[in-house]
Amino acid sequence: MGLDLNSDVGESFGTWTFGDDARIIESVSSVNVACGFHAGDPTGIRVTCGAAAAAGVSVGAHPAYRDLAGFGRRFIDVEPTDLTNDVVYQIGALQALARAAGTTVRYVKPHGALYNTIAVHEQQARAVVRAVREVDENLPLLVLPNTVIEAEARSAGLRTVAEAFADRAYTSDGGLVSRREPGAVLRSEAEVVAQVLRIATDGEVLAADGTRVRIGAESICVHGDTPGAVAMAAAVRRALTAAGVDVGAFA
Amino acid sequence: MGLDLNSDVGESFGTWTFGDDARIIESVSSVNVACGFHAGDPTGIRVTCGAAAAAGVSVGAHPAYRDLAGFGRRFIDVEPTDLTNDVVYQIGALQALARAAGTTVRYVKPHGALYNTIAVHEQQARAVVRAVREVDENLPLLVLPNTVIEAEARSAGLRTVAEAFADRAYTSDGGLVSRREPGAVLRSEAEVVAQVLRIATDGEVLAADGTRVRIGAESICVHGDTPGAVAMAAAVRRALTAAGVDVGAFA
Amino acid sequence: MGLDLNSDVGESFGTWTFGDDARIIESVSSVNVACGFHAGDPTGIRVTCGAAAAAGVSVGAHPAYRDLAGFGRRFIDVEPTDLTNDVVYQIGALQALARAAGTTVRYVKPHGALYNTIAVHEQQARAVVRAVREVDENLPLLVLPNTVIEAEARSAGLRTVAEAFADRAYTSDGGLVSRREPGAVLRSEAEVVAQVLRIATDGEVLAADGTRVRIGAESICVHGDTPGAVAMAAAVRRALTAAGVDVGAFA
Amino acid sequence: MGLDLNSDVGESFGTWTFGDDARIIESVSSVNVACGFHAGDPTGIRVTCGAAAAAGVSVGAHPAYRDLAGFGRRFIDVEPTDLTNDVVYQIGALQALARAAGTTVRYVKPHGALYNTIAVHEQQARAVVRAVREVDENLPLLVLPNTVIEAEARSAGLRTVAEAFADRAYTSDGGLVSRREPGAVLRSEAEVVAQVLRIATDGEVLAADGTRVRIGAESICVHGDTPGAVAMAAAVRRALTAAGVDVGAFA
Repeated sequence: MGLDLNSDVGESFGTWTFGDDARIIESVSSVNVACGFHAGDPTGIRVTCGAAAAAGVSVGAHPAYRDLAGFGRRFIDVEPTDLTNDVVYQIGALQALARAAGTTVRYVKPHGALYNTIAVHEQQARAVVRAVREVDENLPLLVLPNTVIEAEARSAGLRTVAEAFADRAYTSDGGLVSRREPGAVLRSEAEVVAQVLRIATDGEVLAADGTRVRIGAESICVHGDTPGAVAMAAAVRRALTAAGVDVGAFA
Repeated sequence: MGLDLNSDVGESFGTWTFGDDARIIESVSSVNVACGFHAGDPTGIRVTCGAAAAAGVSVGAHPAYRDLAGFGRRFIDVEPTDLTNDVVYQIGALQALARAAGTTVRYVKPHGALYNTIAVHEQQARAVVRAVREVDENLPLLVLPNTVIEAEARSAGLRTVAEAFADRAYTSDGGLVSRREPGAVLRSEAEVVAQVLRIATDGEVLAADGTRVRIGAESICVHGDTPGAVAMAAAVRRALTAAGVDVGAFA
Repeated sequence: MGLDLNSDVGESFGTWTFGDDARIIESVSSVNVACGFHAGDPTGIRVTCGAAAAAGVSVGAHPAYRDLAGFGRRFIDVEPTDLTNDVVYQIGALQALARAAGTTVRYVKPHGALYNTIAVHEQQARAVVRAVREVDENLPLLVLPNTVIEAEARSAGLRTVAEAFADRAYTSDGGLVSRREPGAVLRSEAEVVAQVLRIATDGEVLAADGTRVRIGAESICVHGDTPGAVAMAAAVRRALTAAGVDVGAFA
Repeated sequence: MGLDLNSDVGESFGTWTFGDDARIIESVSSVNVACGFHAGDPTGIRVTCGAAAAAGVSVGAHPAYRDLAGFGRRFIDVEPTDLTNDVVYQIGALQALARAAGTTVRYVKPHGALYNTIAVHEQQARAVVRAVREVDENLPLLVLPNTVIEAEARSAGLRTVAEAFADRAYTSDGGLVSRREPGAVLRSEAEVVAQVLRIATDGEVLAADGTRVRIGAESICVHGDTPGAVAMAAAVRRALTAAGVDVGAFA
């Protein structure tokens, strides 16, 4: 029984630091590395890739809208053609830095508002799929299951890797509770660990309304951008190991 | 007898256009494609790569300082490590877009102030050499001959390709007359064609003071950013062909 | 009988030029000057302000989403608080450059996707109104009539100036035909001049379906970003003068 | 006997935070607020201006080279005309945000590499002086004493305010020991407090070689970008107050 743990990294920019990449890398098996459009300067990206390489952690591309001021968290109504090329550009840039750091880009996970948008927005979802295929049709795409992007990626022949969230509350239909609603984010370590174990061992989550919802996840996303989050990620990792789950990057 | 003609392209950005890539590609054998830091949005870069691919013209990376507002024409005192990673990032981004457009990056030619700086600035020259080697140690570097960058590249084992300028006046020691001085740029088609033919057939230029200076160039740079420049490039190409020079990308 | 003619200017950026500000300023009475977020570098902005000052043309601020790559033409789902402050920032920057150029900012007209969005998006419309009031509650706001932004501005006590478009087709309810539909933009000088004269003398437009629609406009927007557009603007100006309309900035 | 304490603030950008503006504002009498070119998004700038206003702390503009990736710490060989307009733009933007936050811009202190450059670079120094005068010829300029910028500002009729550094080692001729040399930055609270008291009460510093050097400073710069720095600033404030020095903004 195996499971991947992924986390966003490389999100510093120049003098500004964000998250604690060195420590989060100790707890996860895959890192989604910022590619410069929402965060990530080339030196920071490379250092993080090097740390991932040294730790044997898998590197994925974490492309985003071109929006440093908004950290890629704001929807932008970008033309699909431009989105495709923006994503190709970002993955290519990361590939070169990853190689220079002794590793390679093994998957793609879109960031922030782009991630949320392609769950429902057909044109942007297709644009992202096209970009990944043009770079390398063997690159898997990390996706929220049962979404437009999952369907588009599959129908285009891309491998998708379903992901679940350690600290997000779920709706009874398997979606995420909007961050604008109370209780959207699980704050206690106990709750988070319980949710992760339930996903890992039972393949389900307890939705916010108490419903049991089936969630087939190959990877679980944990956060690393606060001191508390790093400790939480470590707790998740320990709990999984203690439960006999083999934490490791998806093949 | 063969000679490469190169020109800067891909220097539009979003709504702003710059140069006439489609037409300049008809006259040259190699194009230096902007990589997004001084110019070049991903869609524009890709379209230009596609046009180069269709025309059988060789694509080179044209990395620059991160300076859209200055078009990469202003020296920036960037740390060597950051410069290396900025250049790796840019080449990688271009590689992915070039592949998506059906071609590949065959060489590197730094842009603008970076080009000028590495002719004399040892630390930045080494930083660029390191970047190219880390991406692909077989990528040739287009350089001004007898410069710091040429020496650094060679001593690091990179292949260098010496370049001459069709429309720049030369000093008696083989350098370029500074753009701040009168007569730095040759304006008439006759002068430009004469200089190119002299380089191609005699391996020399006539310096501004009348001295004959030996110039061993494998590639000649022509400009394409004005209507006049495009016509000039076409005239250079015709004149070379008429003189029996085989215009083609360096191997 | 008086009417203002306005046009977007200052939209170059560094080496990239856009439009022909010097010539469009000869035909209009007000210029909407880019403020740096979608276009406009400080030197270019200032030169354009200076040309407007010399010609006695009124300067307005043309704030936009922060989106150089998209020229401010893409909707961004920015938080209202951030939008307010982005607009305050832009107007303030332009005010300083306008003063340095011997003139002053007399009104505000949002640009591109922001202009279109606040016609219908209550939160963003309020954010823009708040920004204008915080800078100077006496600054008029140029608006499309019968829109959310017009209502929000008025209810907040801002003066609104209704604007019509010389070269855009109208729907029968007084809206603009979407640019995605055929015929959205009037291409012939005769059509454009006819539409402007109808607005100026009859206070109405002929909608795309032939309906006559009342349009109360104090200002008419003409474009200046192509050679043809500049000539069209001149033709509009001549036609208005010939028809006895006094073209001048709104007070 | 009075003395100003100043510190750099407003240097967060979007999601990235930098320094602890709220706490540093408790210890100083003037804050140099980033203007968006090296750091500072409009919302963050405004919040900081509001905190300064609430605390009765004077707001100054902290313009910089256009270099988010380098945090304004890298020399850029920008044309003087462009530098002037870049600085006008930044001060104007801050003025509008400061007014919206209930305060006003009372002085200008260039940031980082620009600050260092204009100490010695005549053209850039003049460009900055020109910018300040064009915005408001009554705005004082905070300067390192005995520098090119001090001389240029004075000869242009600008008021200059001489500044000393709490935590920087001095050379025997009153300059700062380069950050590239060991001992350039004083690390212990005792050393820093001693230096500040010596400046405040004796008008001198002890240079790195032990020489006593006269320093006429109206303002002392303290840093606030680390937890230790904030505590150090508080210690400096307490020591000055205990020594009977009246800490307050220069008039």
